[in-house]
Amino acid sequence: MVKFDGYEFIDGGVCAAEGFKASGVIAGIKAGNTTKRDLALIACDVRCKSAALFTTNKVKGAPIIVSREHLKDGYAQAIVVNSGNANTCNANGVAIAEEMCELTAKMLKLSKEDILVGSTGVIGQKLDIKPIKDAFPLLVKELSDKNSALACEAIMTTDTRKKELAVEFTIDGKKCHLGGISKGSGMINPNMATMLAFITTDVAINGELLKKALRKVNDLTYNMVSVDGDTSTNDSLFLMSSGLAGNDEIICEDKDYEIFENALYAVMMNLARETARDGEGATKLIECIVNGADTEKTAKIVAKSVISSSLVKAALFASDANWGRILCAIGYADADFDINKVSVDLSSAKGKIAVCKNGAGVAFSEEAAKEILSEDEIKILVDLHDGENSAVAWGCDLTFEYVKINAEYRT
Amino acid sequence: MVKFDGYEFIDGGVCAAEGFKASGVIAGIKAGNTTKRDLALIACDVRCKSAALFTTNKVKGAPIIVSREHLKDGYAQAIVVNSGNANTCNANGVAIAEEMCELTAKMLKLSKEDILVGSTGVIGQKLDIKPIKDAFPLLVKELSDKNSALACEAIMTTDTRKKELAVEFTIDGKKCHLGGISKGSGMINPNMATMLAFITTDVAINGELLKKALRKVNDLTYNMVSVDGDTSTNDSLFLMSSGLAGNDEIICEDKDYEIFENALYAVMMNLARETARDGEGATKLIECIVNGADTEKTAKIVAKSVISSSLVKAALFASDANWGRILCAIGYADADFDINKVSVDLSSAKGKIAVCKNGAGVAFSEEAAKEILSEDEIKILVDLHDGENSAVAWGCDLTFEYVKINAEYRT
Repeated sequence: MVKFDGYEFIDGGVCAAEGFKASGVIAGIKAGNTTKRDLALIACDVRCKSAALFTTNKVKGAPIIVSREHLKDGYAQAIVVNSGNANTCNANGVAIAEEMCELTAKMLKLSKEDILVGSTGVIGQKLDIKPIKDAFPLLVKELSDKNSALACEAIMTTDTRKKELAVEFTIDGKKCHLGGISKGSGMINPNMATMLAFITTDVAINGELLKKALRKVNDLTYNMVSVDGDTSTNDSLFLMSSGLAGNDEIICEDKDYEIFENALYAVMMNLARETARDGEGATKLIECIVNGADTEKTAKIVAKSVISSSLVKAALFASDANWGRILCAIGYADADFDINKVSVDLSSAKGKIAVCKNGAGVAFSEEAAKEILSEDEIKILVDLHDGENSAVAWGCDLTFEYVKINAEYRT
Repeated sequence: MVKFDGYEFIDGGVCAAEGFKASGVIAGIKAGNTTKRDLALIACDVRCKSAALFTTNKVKGAPIIVSREHLKDGYAQAIVVNSGNANTCNANGVAIAEEMCELTAKMLKLSKEDILVGSTGVIGQKLDIKPIKDAFPLLVKELSDKNSALACEAIMTTDTRKKELAVEFTIDGKKCHLGGISKGSGMINPNMATMLAFITTDVAINGELLKKALRKVNDLTYNMVSVDGDTSTNDSLFLMSSGLAGNDEIICEDKDYEIFENALYAVMMNLARETARDGEGATKLIECIVNGADTEKTAKIVAKSVISSSLVKAALFASDANWGRILCAIGYADADFDINKVSVDLSSAKGKIAVCKNGAGVAFSEEAAKEILSEDEIKILVDLHDGENSAVAWGCDLTFEYVKINAEYRT
């Protein structure tokens, strides 16, 4: 986890903020599944100001259509999520997504319009409501502020790690909390990474500012992650605020707003980064930091181009300092800068090495480079020497296992 | 090979047209290479009207800088090409590329400005002129109109197949010829595929029309190929016309121009298609045909999006009819159409099957689909039901071997 000043990492994930409970159970949504949790619920004691961002893919999962509708008034109180089936591109997806919301509303005695819904898994197969209905009593019974981890487990598909995090900080003299759970491992590319992410907070904040912060931080975090360049149909990012921390509501972009936004960044950046680390088949987290760009946009485009290159990714799998491929990916990035000023360094816990200066290779020890690249967290440091702007993007290596997972996913 | 009316496929490749000779020898450019041809020469008896297209990558191989300069007057008479080293991003690349041209000019008694040069291989390593110099006498000695295949061999890197083709046709009552050789297997994405392609013809044609035809046909062929999304630093496509067929020079876009353009398409399309088939690690050629688009641009964008998707590519490696991934890739294509009208069929020599209609899955036999997808040439047929425009793109499956090749390439 990358640490920042002014925040403490704490346990509790999506339940760290006041008022939130979660649960996750085995519903058996995918035929034959009797061991993996696949149905999650996050619920709050009060109606929450809420914001969301969804995939830019024209193909949108039915849950997105329903959630968007339910979020029109800016409020929500619970989220129901299944894994094992994306509930997308099937005949009756919207009806099923609505039914999931109705079921949740009925069981929690809430309004259907205050329920959000998410699904992840295979596209184009009918989602059967029966196993969900059957599992619901247990799902509700297990709701607890201790069960973030179970919800986190239930939303995983090919994920190999739980992505769960929370921070504690102070606004207006009150202890505040912000935490989340996230899933995503393949079909991951902005906008956004294929992922579901659920963030909760108890900070009292105006609804428009909540949306604004979510959009800004998402652009710097999830939208800077790529595992395979495939933008999913079901990407959904939800942020709910219970307002129970007791702070005076944040109503303008003041110091308190800044603290809130930074807390949101701390959680979402680390969750997004873990998503890249847990990319399908990945053995390495690749972080590309671009400095010296004339604009932030240029920095972002270059950083994304590098971590998205199949050839760079395959080279790093082999711990091979094939910097020519990195320069190549910088060169085809759709932005304007002078390639002859570009420098590239590689670094990890084992040290740092310059491999390219002024757009050409420099002499370096292949052995030292190999040692640096053998670590499981690699930084590619690019300087465009063309200004003051920076960006960071996160990706992972391309491995045999990626192919294996995706050649066998449906079977 | 895809056949068209009005042309005969013939042997001879880059030497099929009147006036052209070629050769290819083992120079030992890559340390330790004593068995693979790595130096090629194509030369014409007369100065040729010539045109070229180069990579859009900001990082440009030194040979491109030199060739572009030498082509300023629109004429060339010979092309020298090495594999094993890209002569790119090294300290003295341009000087070496110039030296290769000087050497060729001296040996063939031509002007240095009439020599074009190409290189392919690892980026960022110094190219030593000595092995090239040493091999040159043999290279020139072996020049023959029978040796297109040797030149073709000499430009291959990770290629597993020779890509060589020629056609014969009639213009103005004269027998005309157009043929070429091409290499490219990885770091392949438009604009253009990483590839070197050398096309020769004996058709007499005005220089501006030569350029125009090359650009248009390239947009429909090499620019519609993607193996891994990485746009190389060294992509070069050369077209030389000896004008020795004896036809009256083509000076406007008349019927004869159309015949010439179609011949160029026949050769370049088939070479480009073979490039996709020979994608690094590929076991299958994937052809995506998009019909019913409102514009040709939309059709192209959608076709390219489908064949570029890592998830589609991995699914097809496993002969898995995971059409949801295809629809997903159609959905994130950056073009405007109604996803709810889209249909997708899959076909091969084994038959054809509908998998998606009106943007949703339809019932189909998984067994039949598997049989269709087990072939080594797969067609993905997309209809946007939104107009009259079409496009075709070519790609390949994503396999363990792709990762293996690219994780080990430098070592």
